[in-house]
Amino acid sequence: MNPAEHLTELFLRFPGIGPKQAKRFVYFLLRESIHYKQDLIRTIEELKHTGKQCEQCFRFYGETQRSENFLCEICRNENRDNSTIMIVEKELDIDAIEKAGAYNGIYFVLGGTLPLFVEKPSEHIRVRELTVFLHLKLQEKTLSEIIFALPVTDVGDFTKEYLIKTISQIVGIKDVKISSLARGLSSGLELEYVDKATFKSAFDRRD
Amino acid sequence: MNPAEHLTELFLRFPGIGPKQAKRFVYFLLRESIHYKQDLIRTIEELKHTGKQCEQCFRFYGETQRSENFLCEICRNENRDNSTIMIVEKELDIDAIEKAGAYNGIYFVLGGTLPLFVEKPSEHIRVRELTVFLHLKLQEKTLSEIIFALPVTDVGDFTKEYLIKTISQIVGIKDVKISSLARGLSSGLELEYVDKATFKSAFDRRD
Amino acid sequence: MNPAEHLTELFLRFPGIGPKQAKRFVYFLLRESIHYKQDLIRTIEELKHTGKQCEQCFRFYGETQRSENFLCEICRNENRDNSTIMIVEKELDIDAIEKAGAYNGIYFVLGGTLPLFVEKPSEHIRVRELTVFLHLKLQEKTLSEIIFALPVTDVGDFTKEYLIKTISQIVGIKDVKISSLARGLSSGLELEYVDKATFKSAFDRRD
Amino acid sequence: MNPAEHLTELFLRFPGIGPKQAKRFVYFLLRESIHYKQDLIRTIEELKHTGKQCEQCFRFYGETQRSENFLCEICRNENRDNSTIMIVEKELDIDAIEKAGAYNGIYFVLGGTLPLFVEKPSEHIRVRELTVFLHLKLQEKTLSEIIFALPVTDVGDFTKEYLIKTISQIVGIKDVKISSLARGLSSGLELEYVDKATFKSAFDRRD
Repeated sequence: MNPAEHLTELFLRFPGIGPKQAKRFVYFLLRESIHYKQDLIRTIEELKHTGKQCEQCFRFYGETQRSENFLCEICRNENRDNSTIMIVEKELDIDAIEKAGAYNGIYFVLGGTLPLFVEKPSEHIRVRELTVFLHLKLQEKTLSEIIFALPVTDVGDFTKEYLIKTISQIVGIKDVKISSLARGLSSGLELEYVDKATFKSAFDRRD
Repeated sequence: MNPAEHLTELFLRFPGIGPKQAKRFVYFLLRESIHYKQDLIRTIEELKHTGKQCEQCFRFYGETQRSENFLCEICRNENRDNSTIMIVEKELDIDAIEKAGAYNGIYFVLGGTLPLFVEKPSEHIRVRELTVFLHLKLQEKTLSEIIFALPVTDVGDFTKEYLIKTISQIVGIKDVKISSLARGLSSGLELEYVDKATFKSAFDRRD
Repeated sequence: MNPAEHLTELFLRFPGIGPKQAKRFVYFLLRESIHYKQDLIRTIEELKHTGKQCEQCFRFYGETQRSENFLCEICRNENRDNSTIMIVEKELDIDAIEKAGAYNGIYFVLGGTLPLFVEKPSEHIRVRELTVFLHLKLQEKTLSEIIFALPVTDVGDFTKEYLIKTISQIVGIKDVKISSLARGLSSGLELEYVDKATFKSAFDRRD
Repeated sequence: MNPAEHLTELFLRFPGIGPKQAKRFVYFLLRESIHYKQDLIRTIEELKHTGKQCEQCFRFYGETQRSENFLCEICRNENRDNSTIMIVEKELDIDAIEKAGAYNGIYFVLGGTLPLFVEKPSEHIRVRELTVFLHLKLQEKTLSEIIFALPVTDVGDFTKEYLIKTISQIVGIKDVKISSLARGLSSGLELEYVDKATFKSAFDRRD
């Protein structure tokens, strides 16, 4: 197999990429300048060395250079309120929330959601890691609130219910506030498409 | 022009229907039973006689039979709280909100939204009718709350601002609560697509 | 059930129309002028009386007024070559082909295509009617060509194969040319999406 | 800018990739194994060395190893008929045509199509390179046919017309057959969507 064919196969593993687009990427690279290809190689190489997973919130992130840090730039930022933890599904959620600029606590990345009727939850989400994390926080007596920011879907709701049941068994959790982002009308919504749960919440919280 | 061609043109005025689908409707009717066509004719005929516009909320609606009522079944329902008025864009919004089953007040149908930089608002929405309606309600001293339920878009926001400015000049309106349905996470939303205004509202209203 | 609700149900049977759009149609009619509604009623009424099915090609069509004609305007047009028959799936195909303006023969409307592995073909397409039609044409000794214009899909090909096998048993059919519209590059096609059968035919017929 | 951010920008230049998907690619790489990232780096590196542009047909292609070849594997394949040249827009077209397996000549890659009303055609397509190529072929007296395989669109037709006018001025071109792939019904086409040019060609070439 020549490099063009092998590269097509590697691109096929990129999220959302089919055979046609994988080929298109290869032809794009064949046409692009040596400089661009060199830049791409060097940057993936750097990412290989500096990209890591935060030992506290479990998100994957890239650093400016190799370092001995085990925490991401959010978890080690002393200006952030580490008594508040927002539980999200994945890294892209953090990007969108940080961009909104309204939250100053820290995160925990579940790494997925639970399919309905799942048998081994810990194979789908970081439930054990979350439990350990909360235990530690409770020992440090620094935990004040856990905020659920999961997708507003059956699967998101099921995941939240499962997690609330699980963490409610942790000693000392009772003094911690557990909340969820409010349902309501998202930007772009037309009322004719509103469903019951969304309307009810938007109505009850009107002001 | 034969009836098939003329009917194609009439169907072309139906909302969202292009030439191809208008033709498809005609071929559908040509193939359908005499009974179905008769039923369709008779029902449109009935709608012609019993369909009307409510003189209070301005929605178009159909009745079971010809009647002397000038109010729709919501406006004349004595079990509904007519001190609370929800301002919506169109009839389909009422259908969705009624289906949610969480609101027991009455409505006012604007009949549209205001395009940005519009010159003659009253040609786009029932702003004069709304002012008259609110005047009457205030004289009766029965008005306690006006709830805006407009689309969560630039155009919806602009319409709301314009209306609030307009109705704030009505004598006695100060004692009336003016509210809006809360923004938040709508059903189906994934956090990675959340925008600033939606997140901020969902975060502030968490519980 | 009031007329608005009943009309919503009737519109739901229109091809490609779901509950939301059926409602939208009803609100559109409620808002429209009496004149438009009257025009719609009268035209459907006329269609009921003048709409019929051609006894030769089996297409449904509308006439300008009630008449004793049993043939559609194409079948009874003496300027058309009734020795050439194009077999199509449905009426909309005839509209598109007539618009192209390159064909001067007559049609036969199958009324559908055959699903693969079908047990009773005559319940899906007018195969018996086609056989009778061809018998008559052969007795009149006026048939020179049968052209297949079926969709270029597995189901279209399967239907064609089945029909060729069936009509090849008709006595005297051997002197009739049997042809199919050529495969090739349709307007809008980009070569990167070309499949084997299309390319091969387009290449063999190049000029 | 850290490597994750820089890589996001590099991925943004990939064809058809927006900011969201560029980020998704970076998170995918952050999560993927060292082995995969190493494989990706090595393969892009190889492509950098072995990827080249054919000096005859101008397509970009990848080779199994560094070589002194100036021709792609199609142009240097002695079993292919190099007296027949098919003019295509881009490399992906060649992939689809080769997959069809019905063509044994060689190609010329234009590298684009001509926008309507273009002023400097040679900035959009390889018209000068094509002229030089055809001159050489004519001197060798080995050219028998030029086949146009351009997209079946206004822009494709305009490009073909321009090229035919341009190459018709080359001395000796008159003895060369100039053809185009035939229009007709592409796989998947339903007759109701057929346009005039497609139907006419499909009808004239029926068999």
